[in-house]
Amino acid sequence: MKKSKLNIGIIGLGSVGQGVVKIIEDSKLKIKNKTNQEINIIGISAYDKSKKRDINIKSYTWYDNPLEMCQQGNLDVLIELIGGDEGIALEVIERAIKNKKHIITANKALIAKHGNRLIRLAESIGVSFLYEAAVAGAIPIIKILKESTSSNDIDALYGILNGTSNYILTSMEEEQITFKAALKKAQDLGFAEADPAFDIGGYDAAHKLSILSSIIFSHEINFDNVEVNGISDISLDDIKAASEYGYKIKLLGISKKIKEKVIQSVRPCLITNNSQLANIKYEQNAIVIKGNYFGELLLSGAGAGRFPTSSAVMSDIFDLLNNSVYPSLGTPYLNLQKEKSIDKVDENKRYYLSFLLPDISGTVASITNIMAKNNISIDDIIQRISKKMHKDNLVPVTMITSKTNSNSINKAVEEINKNNYTSYSPNIIDIEDL
Amino acid sequence: MKKSKLNIGIIGLGSVGQGVVKIIEDSKLKIKNKTNQEINIIGISAYDKSKKRDINIKSYTWYDNPLEMCQQGNLDVLIELIGGDEGIALEVIERAIKNKKHIITANKALIAKHGNRLIRLAESIGVSFLYEAAVAGAIPIIKILKESTSSNDIDALYGILNGTSNYILTSMEEEQITFKAALKKAQDLGFAEADPAFDIGGYDAAHKLSILSSIIFSHEINFDNVEVNGISDISLDDIKAASEYGYKIKLLGISKKIKEKVIQSVRPCLITNNSQLANIKYEQNAIVIKGNYFGELLLSGAGAGRFPTSSAVMSDIFDLLNNSVYPSLGTPYLNLQKEKSIDKVDENKRYYLSFLLPDISGTVASITNIMAKNNISIDDIIQRISKKMHKDNLVPVTMITSKTNSNSINKAVEEINKNNYTSYSPNIIDIEDL
Repeated sequence: MKKSKLNIGIIGLGSVGQGVVKIIEDSKLKIKNKTNQEINIIGISAYDKSKKRDINIKSYTWYDNPLEMCQQGNLDVLIELIGGDEGIALEVIERAIKNKKHIITANKALIAKHGNRLIRLAESIGVSFLYEAAVAGAIPIIKILKESTSSNDIDALYGILNGTSNYILTSMEEEQITFKAALKKAQDLGFAEADPAFDIGGYDAAHKLSILSSIIFSHEINFDNVEVNGISDISLDDIKAASEYGYKIKLLGISKKIKEKVIQSVRPCLITNNSQLANIKYEQNAIVIKGNYFGELLLSGAGAGRFPTSSAVMSDIFDLLNNSVYPSLGTPYLNLQKEKSIDKVDENKRYYLSFLLPDISGTVASITNIMAKNNISIDDIIQRISKKMHKDNLVPVTMITSKTNSNSINKAVEEINKNNYTSYSPNIIDIEDL
Repeated sequence: MKKSKLNIGIIGLGSVGQGVVKIIEDSKLKIKNKTNQEINIIGISAYDKSKKRDINIKSYTWYDNPLEMCQQGNLDVLIELIGGDEGIALEVIERAIKNKKHIITANKALIAKHGNRLIRLAESIGVSFLYEAAVAGAIPIIKILKESTSSNDIDALYGILNGTSNYILTSMEEEQITFKAALKKAQDLGFAEADPAFDIGGYDAAHKLSILSSIIFSHEINFDNVEVNGISDISLDDIKAASEYGYKIKLLGISKKIKEKVIQSVRPCLITNNSQLANIKYEQNAIVIKGNYFGELLLSGAGAGRFPTSSAVMSDIFDLLNNSVYPSLGTPYLNLQKEKSIDKVDENKRYYLSFLLPDISGTVASITNIMAKNNISIDDIIQRISKKMHKDNLVPVTMITSKTNSNSINKAVEEINKNNYTSYSPNIIDIEDL
């Protein structure tokens, strides 16, 4: 039954919260024309009322206590844009669900941590829990995975899900600058936080990946099972070496099924220059999905920013205006496979290794012997005498292996380290064949 | 109110019809798990019952007369996969709507021609009219434009919407073969029909574009206002010349607003190698959308084929299972702007021109003088003496102009043709700055 008015309350008036208010203010006619309904902001709330903002808060009813707003009888939808995986964001969402309000949130950290409980609660009470803005900004990946690719068995999903990391890696590659310089640049331009650990450590991407993986494989959200590796060990030399082999280094979120087991990981990977994801530059996000019927889909767009993210929040509002009642994770919560720890699946793949080795005759031979002993073939090897660090008598050597498993690689590297050629442990990066 | 069973009837059992039956047969458990409902095929129908098929038609109730099936009391959804913009496809859809059945179709030609009337009828009766499979195969572009980008003012949409044309252009470029050889190859591989006029003439892309344009600009479908140009005049020399200037030639469907007027066109364009659409190869489809809030989105995937298309049909079925009631064109039919013929809007753009000119001193100077007289500046010019056709004493000359309008170009070309330098009229291709 369509009503003529959807009453929403917004909690959190940072960049995205203000963006949503502005879009609603600027789009009254369009919304009316497309839905024969109106969106009515019945209340707003934020931590600091006096903060300077781009919207006129006097146009709306202000709640000092957001919990009070969650209980208003005329409220249909609570939009949570505070952020944080605990505290007030969690409190208002729980309170609102229990008061039979629909939820819209952009809070990936909270969903990764408490999504199972909240979504189960929302579905048992019969309200919607929507979060298109939580993953990949303006890219409508939640809707597509829940709605468009639903009939498929998904083989794998690969995503560039963290704009900051992709900005840094692209800057290093395109401008031939160090990790440190690229990070500084990203911070100066506002693409990276003052404390970037969360982004470059891979945790932000891991939150997002855990949600996407749940949708495509119909399991409960299982953030603790995401293997997380960030980009802080990637050097400009690695990027140059990858480039010589025809690859780019990207931080990928990967969820795939191998031998009926779901693997979730976030890690820097070498991907071939010919792959579409290799060409996703700077702060852009992109996702490739592979399914048994549709084949392969690529989506790319703005992964963050006030209006791209607000536009995603608006799409959730449009879903409520149009009665769309897809389950939050694409499958009714009670039908999801239970969260469980997953045994390590050792996938066969190729690896990139980079060493600093003493320029002593026989060193490379001894390394390749250790590889051979562990059944690892080497596809390509580059030794750069011209880049010799004369102080330490060390020469950079990189190689690409044939397909092998991480066990063999780890054993080989352990043995190499034991031999004390150098105090530098080799840098190992997976090669992902997309 | 969700029912436990959705009863569907399928008319048309060609490649896609059989694909849909197979997916439903193979996905019973998945569908049950994701929706707590079942899809029940209550009837099938096709022109020739005796044809050899990949499905066992004996498992289903066969209707010799598809119109009879449309009236069955237990039918919820009619899936029309016959094709053709008149005749039985149109008849069954009308009959089914009038009998309060939801419609799913992949028939772009029929929607381009009769969509306004059918959608108006469906909305007045209160049934859904869904057609995700009609445009760009597995790419969920209909859903995204109707649902995800709804709050935005769309600036423009650019699409590679015809796989056959893109296959031919890519083959010419990558394998340096002629148009004729590329077409033959596409036919041998099944990417092009025996009569390819519909695809390479741009009409298939134009049908699709007229539907997308209606959704993004909230106007009635206006196929007659699509300016249609195909690829049959594109020569390997054009492709080589474009490549020298840093461009690829692609058949683009373009819908954009200029001075508050909607322009719809399908035409070959030069686009820079740096643009994402330039890298969409062979039979792939792709679409770029630009909006005021979300920025720019790219989607690419399989534009045709049994299972990609069937997967799109399945997504429409999932919408019905989940009560999604978005209007067919994103805006309720009665709120759409009326179909009207649109005055030509002369957009300023750059052009690529290719001439065959006699190797006589002063010819190029005289051409460039005519351009200057018509206020057209020339950015780049390449004269290929090495490619001289000695028999006719003709030399290929290509140029890229600065921004100008089509009027000036047409006047200049007319004057050039009058001078009778050669019997070849120059080939003119738009340069589209994506």
